[in-house]
Amino acid sequence: MANQPNQLFNYSVIQNMAQKPSIPKGTRDFTPAEMIKRNYIFDTIRSVYKLFGYLPIETPAMETMQTLMGKYGEEGDRLIFKILNSGEFQQDLTAQDLAEKSAAALAHQICEKALRYDLTVPFARFVVMHRNEIQLPFKRYQIQPVWRADRPQRGRYREFFQCDADIVGSNSLLNEYELVQIIDMVFQKFGIGVTIKMNNRKILSGIAEIICEPDKITDITVAIDKYEKIGIENVNKELQEKGIAPEKIAILQPIIELQGTNEEKLDKLAVILAGSTIGLEGISELRYVFELLNCITLKATVEVDLTLARGLNYYTGAIFEVKANDVQIGSICGGGRYDNLTGIFGMEGISGVGISFGADRIFDVLNQLDAYPETTKQTTQVLFINFGETEQRVILPMLTELRAQGISCEIYPEQGKMKKQMQYANDRAIPFVALVGESEMQNNTITLKNMQTGEQKTVSLQELQKLSR
Amino acid sequence: MANQPNQLFNYSVIQNMAQKPSIPKGTRDFTPAEMIKRNYIFDTIRSVYKLFGYLPIETPAMETMQTLMGKYGEEGDRLIFKILNSGEFQQDLTAQDLAEKSAAALAHQICEKALRYDLTVPFARFVVMHRNEIQLPFKRYQIQPVWRADRPQRGRYREFFQCDADIVGSNSLLNEYELVQIIDMVFQKFGIGVTIKMNNRKILSGIAEIICEPDKITDITVAIDKYEKIGIENVNKELQEKGIAPEKIAILQPIIELQGTNEEKLDKLAVILAGSTIGLEGISELRYVFELLNCITLKATVEVDLTLARGLNYYTGAIFEVKANDVQIGSICGGGRYDNLTGIFGMEGISGVGISFGADRIFDVLNQLDAYPETTKQTTQVLFINFGETEQRVILPMLTELRAQGISCEIYPEQGKMKKQMQYANDRAIPFVALVGESEMQNNTITLKNMQTGEQKTVSLQELQKLSR
Repeated sequence: MANQPNQLFNYSVIQNMAQKPSIPKGTRDFTPAEMIKRNYIFDTIRSVYKLFGYLPIETPAMETMQTLMGKYGEEGDRLIFKILNSGEFQQDLTAQDLAEKSAAALAHQICEKALRYDLTVPFARFVVMHRNEIQLPFKRYQIQPVWRADRPQRGRYREFFQCDADIVGSNSLLNEYELVQIIDMVFQKFGIGVTIKMNNRKILSGIAEIICEPDKITDITVAIDKYEKIGIENVNKELQEKGIAPEKIAILQPIIELQGTNEEKLDKLAVILAGSTIGLEGISELRYVFELLNCITLKATVEVDLTLARGLNYYTGAIFEVKANDVQIGSICGGGRYDNLTGIFGMEGISGVGISFGADRIFDVLNQLDAYPETTKQTTQVLFINFGETEQRVILPMLTELRAQGISCEIYPEQGKMKKQMQYANDRAIPFVALVGESEMQNNTITLKNMQTGEQKTVSLQELQKLSR
Repeated sequence: MANQPNQLFNYSVIQNMAQKPSIPKGTRDFTPAEMIKRNYIFDTIRSVYKLFGYLPIETPAMETMQTLMGKYGEEGDRLIFKILNSGEFQQDLTAQDLAEKSAAALAHQICEKALRYDLTVPFARFVVMHRNEIQLPFKRYQIQPVWRADRPQRGRYREFFQCDADIVGSNSLLNEYELVQIIDMVFQKFGIGVTIKMNNRKILSGIAEIICEPDKITDITVAIDKYEKIGIENVNKELQEKGIAPEKIAILQPIIELQGTNEEKLDKLAVILAGSTIGLEGISELRYVFELLNCITLKATVEVDLTLARGLNYYTGAIFEVKANDVQIGSICGGGRYDNLTGIFGMEGISGVGISFGADRIFDVLNQLDAYPETTKQTTQVLFINFGETEQRVILPMLTELRAQGISCEIYPEQGKMKKQMQYANDRAIPFVALVGESEMQNNTITLKNMQTGEQKTVSLQELQKLSR
C-alpha cells in the first residue's frame, strides 16, 4: 500500500488487501512497451503471409468438446481447458457419477465446450464447414492465442499465440518451396540468422522399412541426432539399448555417418534406401524443393536433417524446423505436410502443408539480440505542455490540425507542474515537447523541445509538422 | 456429402457423418472476406486511438474467479463462462455438496478461472497490478474479444470484440472533450453519420435530489425518453404508475418538456436544478465540454440527452452514447466517467473516463450502408498461371522480385486446366492474371490480363510492377 499515502488503515483497506488482484498462472498481461514489440512481430509475419497470397481467417476461442477431444492424444485431452456449462450444469450429475467416474468422464458430462488447443484442428473444422464458401487450393493464415493446461515454466505459457499459414487442396511441392521462402523472408525482416532444417516423413518411413523396425523410428532419430555430440560408438550403444539388432545397426551405420552437402547426403541416402520405394519418393521430393531453392538467394541456411521427426504421427511428407543461429532456444518455427487433416471431420483426400511461427520465442530471441527497430513512431510524437485555460484554447485547434496530418499528439490533461509534465513525456518516450506560453501566443509560434538532444527551437505549426513526422 | 462424389458410402462415412463438425452457438468463424472487413474496422479505430496518444495493452482471456465474480451483478455472475479446474477437479466434491449446493456455489468449488466478461474490470486489475510500471495519467486502448453466456440471438453473440479506450488518473474535462473528438473522427473515417448523445450522472442525481426519489431515477429517465413518441400525458401516466406522486411529476414537467439547442436546454435545466449543488455541477461540466467542442468542427451532431442513463450504477460524471443516423440499430459506441474503478482492487482515488466501440454492430452498419472502401489491395494482386515445369522456372524468380517490391503475388500451385486457374483468380477477386508461355519466354515478356476490364497487354516485369501497385 506504499503508493497510497493518504489511505487510512481501516476495514475497507484490510478487505482490499485481501482482494489484491492476480492473474491465472501461466498467463500474462502485456504492457504498452511489450505490445509494441509483439505487434511488430505479428505485423511482420502477417505482411509476409500477405505477400505470398495467404488470406486471414479467425475461429472462435471456444470449440465444441467433440471437435477437440481425441485429436491430441490422451495427454492433449488432459491439457485442454474445458468450459463449464452455464446454468444448472450439475442437474444430471448423480452421487454415483461422482463416486464412479473419472475426472475426464465427469468433465464430458458437465462441459460441452473447451478452449482451442492449437490452430490446426480448428482450421480443419473450418475447411470442412466452409467447403462451399472457399476456393481450393485455399491459402490461409491465422494469428490467434491458444490455451494449454501445461505446467507453466520459463518460456512456457498457458496462453500463447500461434501464427500459422497453411495451404490445403494442393499436392504441389511448390508449396513447400514457398513456405521455405516465407520462413526466410520473415527472419530476414527480423534480422535473426536461422537454419531451416528439412526432412521428409517418407525418408523416415524408408529407413524403418529397410531395417523392418517401423515402431522404433523415434528412438532411431533421437539416437542418430546425437552422433556429433557423443560419437558413433555411443550412438550404436543407444540403438542397441533400444532393442535394435546388431545386423540392423550395421545397415543404419552409413545413415548415421552421412556427411557433406545436402546433395551429397541425399545421393548417399538414395543408395542406402534403393530398396524402399517410399524412401526414394521422400528423397526425390526433398531434391525437387532444393533444386527450386537453388535458383534463388536465401539468407537462411537450409539443411537436410534426418533426425527431424516432429509431429511424426501427423506429417506425411515434408517436415520443417527452424533454429536461431545465435541464440540458444528451442525451435522458433516448424511445420510440415499432412495428407488427411480434414478426414477426421468427414472430408477425405485433402492434402495440406503448413508452418507455424512461435511468436513468444521470437519475442525472447529479439529481446536477447536487442534487434527491435526504432519504435518511437508507435507512440505520441508531440506532447503539448498545459499551462492553463488561456493557452489551452490556443493549443486545442493545433492538436486537431496535427492529427488531421496524421501526427500523433496530445496535451497533458491537467495543469500540473512543468516538471511533472516533462517527466510524463520522458517516461512515455515522447520525442518532442511543445510549449505555448504568453510570448509564443503573442508571436504565434511554438517552442519545440527535442527530448533526445535537449535542443529548443522556435517554430511555426507548419514547421512543427515537418519536424515531428 | 454432395461434394464428395467419389466417396463410397461405407462405415467410415457413416461415422464421419456423425462427426459433422459445428461450433458452439453464439460463436462465429470469420472467413477471409469477413476478416478483411473486420480488420478495416479495428485498424481504423486503432489508428485514431494512436493519433490521440492512447497506448495498447492486452490482458489474458482467463481471469481468476475472484477478479471477475461480483463485479457485474448477479445476472453478470451467471453469464460469466467458468473454466473447469484441470486434473482431478472433483476431488473435494462430495455427494452432499452435490445435493445441497447451488450451481453457483458448486462452480466456485471446481473452477478457479473464468473468461473475461468485458475489458473494463481486467483494465482496472491491470492498473492496480502494474501501478509501478505505468505513468499516470495512463491512456490505454484495448481491442480484444469478451465472452458472455447470453442467449444468442440476431446481432448478439457469446464471443464478441470490444474496442475500448480509457484514460485513468486525470479528472480533467479535456479528456471528455477528446473522447468526443475520437468518436467523431472514427465515424467520419467510416463514413457513418452519427449523433453523439451526452448526459451527466450528476444531472440525473440532481433531478432525483429535487424530487426526493433517488431510487426511481431509471424509471424516470425511461419515461422522459418517451415524450416525443407518446406525448406528455402518457409520460405522466407512466410516472404515476411507477409511484411518483403528482406534486413531484409537476416538478418534473419542465424537464420533460425541455426543448431547444443544447445551450438552451442547459440554461433551462439550471433554473430547475438551482437547488441542487450536484445537479448544477453536472450542468457546468457539460457546458464546459460543449464550449470546447464549439471551437472545432465536428461532423457528428452532439446532443444533450437527459434520458441517457447507461451504466447508471457505474458512471459518476459524463455519459456518452452514439447512434447511427441512417441505420436502425442500438448504440454503436458508449462510455462515461467513473470515479473509483480501481477501488474494487484496493487502489482508491483514481478517476477514469472511457469509451467502447461496438465492432460487431459497426460491422453490420457498414454492411447495410455498403460503405467499405475498395479492399482488393488486401489480397493477391497478381496470379501467375502455371503452364508447367519449364515456365515455372522462369516465373519463380519473377515472384521473388515482385515480392521484394512489396507486391503480393502467387503462382497457381498445380499445373491445372487454364479455366480452373482463371476461375481461381476470379473467385479470389485477384485483379491481374499474368501469363508466361512459350512466346513470352522467347521475348522475355509477360501477358498481363486485367480481370476487371478483360484487357490484355504485353508487358515487361518492370511494367507489371507499376501496373499492379
